[in-house]
Amino acid sequence: MENPSIILRTVCPDQPGLVCQLTSWINSSGGNIKHSDHHTDQDAELFLSRIEWDINSYPINKLEIFKGFQQIAKNINAKFTINYTDEIPNVAIFVSKQNHCLIDLLWRVRNGELKMNVPLIISNHPDLEGLANDFNAKFIYYDATYNQKSEIEKQILNKLKLFDIKFAILAKYMQILSESFLNEFPEIINIHHSFLPAFKGSQPYHRAWKRGVKLIGATAHYVTKDLDEGPIIDQRTVRVSHRDEVDDLIRKGRDIERISLARAVLMHLNHQVFVYNRKTAVFD
Amino acid sequence: MENPSIILRTVCPDQPGLVCQLTSWINSSGGNIKHSDHHTDQDAELFLSRIEWDINSYPINKLEIFKGFQQIAKNINAKFTINYTDEIPNVAIFVSKQNHCLIDLLWRVRNGELKMNVPLIISNHPDLEGLANDFNAKFIYYDATYNQKSEIEKQILNKLKLFDIKFAILAKYMQILSESFLNEFPEIINIHHSFLPAFKGSQPYHRAWKRGVKLIGATAHYVTKDLDEGPIIDQRTVRVSHRDEVDDLIRKGRDIERISLARAVLMHLNHQVFVYNRKTAVFD
Amino acid sequence: MENPSIILRTVCPDQPGLVCQLTSWINSSGGNIKHSDHHTDQDAELFLSRIEWDINSYPINKLEIFKGFQQIAKNINAKFTINYTDEIPNVAIFVSKQNHCLIDLLWRVRNGELKMNVPLIISNHPDLEGLANDFNAKFIYYDATYNQKSEIEKQILNKLKLFDIKFAILAKYMQILSESFLNEFPEIINIHHSFLPAFKGSQPYHRAWKRGVKLIGATAHYVTKDLDEGPIIDQRTVRVSHRDEVDDLIRKGRDIERISLARAVLMHLNHQVFVYNRKTAVFD
Amino acid sequence: MENPSIILRTVCPDQPGLVCQLTSWINSSGGNIKHSDHHTDQDAELFLSRIEWDINSYPINKLEIFKGFQQIAKNINAKFTINYTDEIPNVAIFVSKQNHCLIDLLWRVRNGELKMNVPLIISNHPDLEGLANDFNAKFIYYDATYNQKSEIEKQILNKLKLFDIKFAILAKYMQILSESFLNEFPEIINIHHSFLPAFKGSQPYHRAWKRGVKLIGATAHYVTKDLDEGPIIDQRTVRVSHRDEVDDLIRKGRDIERISLARAVLMHLNHQVFVYNRKTAVFD
Repeated sequence: MENPSIILRTVCPDQPGLVCQLTSWINSSGGNIKHSDHHTDQDAELFLSRIEWDINSYPINKLEIFKGFQQIAKNINAKFTINYTDEIPNVAIFVSKQNHCLIDLLWRVRNGELKMNVPLIISNHPDLEGLANDFNAKFIYYDATYNQKSEIEKQILNKLKLFDIKFAILAKYMQILSESFLNEFPEIINIHHSFLPAFKGSQPYHRAWKRGVKLIGATAHYVTKDLDEGPIIDQRTVRVSHRDEVDDLIRKGRDIERISLARAVLMHLNHQVFVYNRKTAVFD
Repeated sequence: MENPSIILRTVCPDQPGLVCQLTSWINSSGGNIKHSDHHTDQDAELFLSRIEWDINSYPINKLEIFKGFQQIAKNINAKFTINYTDEIPNVAIFVSKQNHCLIDLLWRVRNGELKMNVPLIISNHPDLEGLANDFNAKFIYYDATYNQKSEIEKQILNKLKLFDIKFAILAKYMQILSESFLNEFPEIINIHHSFLPAFKGSQPYHRAWKRGVKLIGATAHYVTKDLDEGPIIDQRTVRVSHRDEVDDLIRKGRDIERISLARAVLMHLNHQVFVYNRKTAVFD
Repeated sequence: MENPSIILRTVCPDQPGLVCQLTSWINSSGGNIKHSDHHTDQDAELFLSRIEWDINSYPINKLEIFKGFQQIAKNINAKFTINYTDEIPNVAIFVSKQNHCLIDLLWRVRNGELKMNVPLIISNHPDLEGLANDFNAKFIYYDATYNQKSEIEKQILNKLKLFDIKFAILAKYMQILSESFLNEFPEIINIHHSFLPAFKGSQPYHRAWKRGVKLIGATAHYVTKDLDEGPIIDQRTVRVSHRDEVDDLIRKGRDIERISLARAVLMHLNHQVFVYNRKTAVFD
Repeated sequence: MENPSIILRTVCPDQPGLVCQLTSWINSSGGNIKHSDHHTDQDAELFLSRIEWDINSYPINKLEIFKGFQQIAKNINAKFTINYTDEIPNVAIFVSKQNHCLIDLLWRVRNGELKMNVPLIISNHPDLEGLANDFNAKFIYYDATYNQKSEIEKQILNKLKLFDIKFAILAKYMQILSESFLNEFPEIINIHHSFLPAFKGSQPYHRAWKRGVKLIGATAHYVTKDLDEGPIIDQRTVRVSHRDEVDDLIRKGRDIERISLARAVLMHLNHQVFVYNRKTAVFD
């Protein structure tokens, strides 16, 4: 069992001396840095930094840490987040009928690979209730046919608050969330079953088959109000041939969907993803 | 050195007994089949077949073979091609300024990997003349700025005839051929530096970088009048990250462009590609 | 739902007219061929053929089919198998403590991707009994510490007979089966967590980490009496770097183990694998 | 054209405050850091750091830089190298008969992708002299059959000195260099045509074909006295099937050999490779 860590992510305008300033501050309180990674986006003139250090050896408490760094952030005009690896977030998973991404995520949680709790599973279909039960998650089904979307989204937002959900995963959820929903609850990862920006929108495998591509793809990305346009976290492709029917594309696609989504969630949970300029930097 | 072969490609409506009919005809003249591959596209209700047999043991001549099969083709309502591996085609390569695909193709020709002659290299820039000379190819440069496109294309078509060119390769040729040119000379393979259908058209690496994709791609395809819409023969992707600038994308892309184009040309030369319904079947 | 098929696999010395002979026989009874694939191994002078045709339109019964082809097989000196896609085999899965391959296989069975029944799960550890129960499989745990291996294997063989098991999958089963066991029950697929022939035997990830490889691998293969020397069905690799500890190798490896094993089982179930000369030909 | 940079690589026992100490020293003289990357190998208890900063804005000269850092290195018990991106090294390439890696490297040099000079090409076969001439490199052929190996190696070492060669690349050089040669001239990168540690030694493609692997590999590594045991820099694999003969493996292998070797040389030239404990850390 690894010791818990503090993870500091900083984004600020590039300027000399930043790495030293950040690490000095950590060292001055006796912090022992385990990982540090920095990147300068020269086009955006931005400095990105992720530093992880041991919480055990660290004498000051969370509030002091926050206030201490707030001062530095002001000086360097930085946005920052501070996270603790022993604070396990609650995560909601949204699904429709397909189970492969859901079961894959829940298996990785159970095995300790993804450090999160999944107390809540939301669906517009009743099919996956049994699976949710197997993993002790509350399953909430709403019927999108007979209800107002705005009303449904309001109820979902209430549930997300009730279960103290930090972020959500759309694990093959075949509904589009409204802009107002996203304004209320913006931290959402989606898996799209194509190599974006190719085949945005519905039925990407059918369209890929029709076009005769020789590779199909999967893309894990943050959700924004523009469909399939959010910052990309991970992408995978797999080879297909003329021998593959649409069903084969769907079958082969499931494997890269699962792996791409799982990796995106892992990176997100480890606070290894920076989002800026509608893109991501993934410090892996 | 392998014995030369006859290669018969047949496309016809699916119907019982086709494989037997084709192979019987070959066996009845004593043909020894080296490779045979068949595919039924159940959606298109089409049967595709490629059979390769030894030319040495085969007692009948090319004209007899053609006439003999023409009769069968009529009965089964088939389109077909017959090729001989000891007939090495003349191929023209079109380039602009970049040399990586050209040098790669010429190297593979010299090493015997691609069985074709390259007597003619055509360019809208003078830069690669030296390379053409190194490989004993005639280099024809025309200045696209000061001349009428239709006039230039007419001259190019004349050269293609003069050099008895069977097909052409656009090896990073940054000009668009007109529909009338393609009607006159349709057998052309292009390499596009993106994962089609993503980033059609110009500057795909710049747009890929801007979009923040995590993989970039290359697509080798037949040229049709609709830009970057032709039947795809081969596709590759390579991983990129936030650390990669546009220049890195271009550098990494060169490697998959070369390999994708070379593979497409190899498959084409071996008569392993079928084109139908704006797609390909690649019998590899 | 696809129509059920008959699948004929034939291996015999290469000789002219084989494809025609096989397809004639099928066509003569009105069989409509859906897929056919042939390969000549010129080194081994062997002809391999797999033909799949529609069972619905086929007027003769299984016994007649068998007897009919037996006659042909005699003439061409062939070994052959005939299988029916509507005969779903019973399969036993052997596990130890790790659950990722088991859960992956059971999920694919449930989703209809792998057409097999799994009535029996055998383990040298009690850990995965709950998972077996979730999928309605009998879980048999034996304690390898306190029992004679030969005695345990005898009991296992009895169970395999009792449950009418057609073949077995070692899904991270950390025991070696004896030669006498394999003689009694030879049809077994194993997943080894390295790129064979590198890192045969125990602790491949630890040894890979120590060696500083930049890719790790997984190999699905048939089990033979020589450890990790059996015919290879599928192999995968995944990139690793100096930032990956042994635990990361194990984590990344799980994904390729699952996918490689699942693909090998799919190919085996579809009768797409030929084994000869200690190698396989996989007709995919 | 990018500004030239200073690259400092440091390896020392892990201890608190290292990053700050290094970056402070650079910043104190007004250095503007362009890239910095650090890694702690917790198993080896080592800290690895690579920092790259702008040479233009830097007021102190090379000697001062060296002496300045020497002092720091003493305090933290570090080994270090300092390199300048405007110092282009002379590199010798060793070949036998195959040209694909050589032509690939020379093309990348000409295109500015690999920033090195290649004044010298050494071979135990005369075949590639023309290629060397095309790229203005001195070609030295020695006949290994009629001469003493120790005598030949002595002559080669003299040539390496004469041409001021900084490091060497074995681009399919089918000879083994002696331990005494390596002691004199240790900085050598080799490409081996297998996925090491599988198929060390001669004829890896033949042995891979015989074993029936489903992927073949290439490994770029530093040369040590133990054959094919040196620290690995890069590895690639490519899929093969039963349809591939040994010649196809050789053909497919050439592409991954070229790309793996080119990437290893690029990483080496950019001082992105650390070697320790018979492994590498590649800071890409």
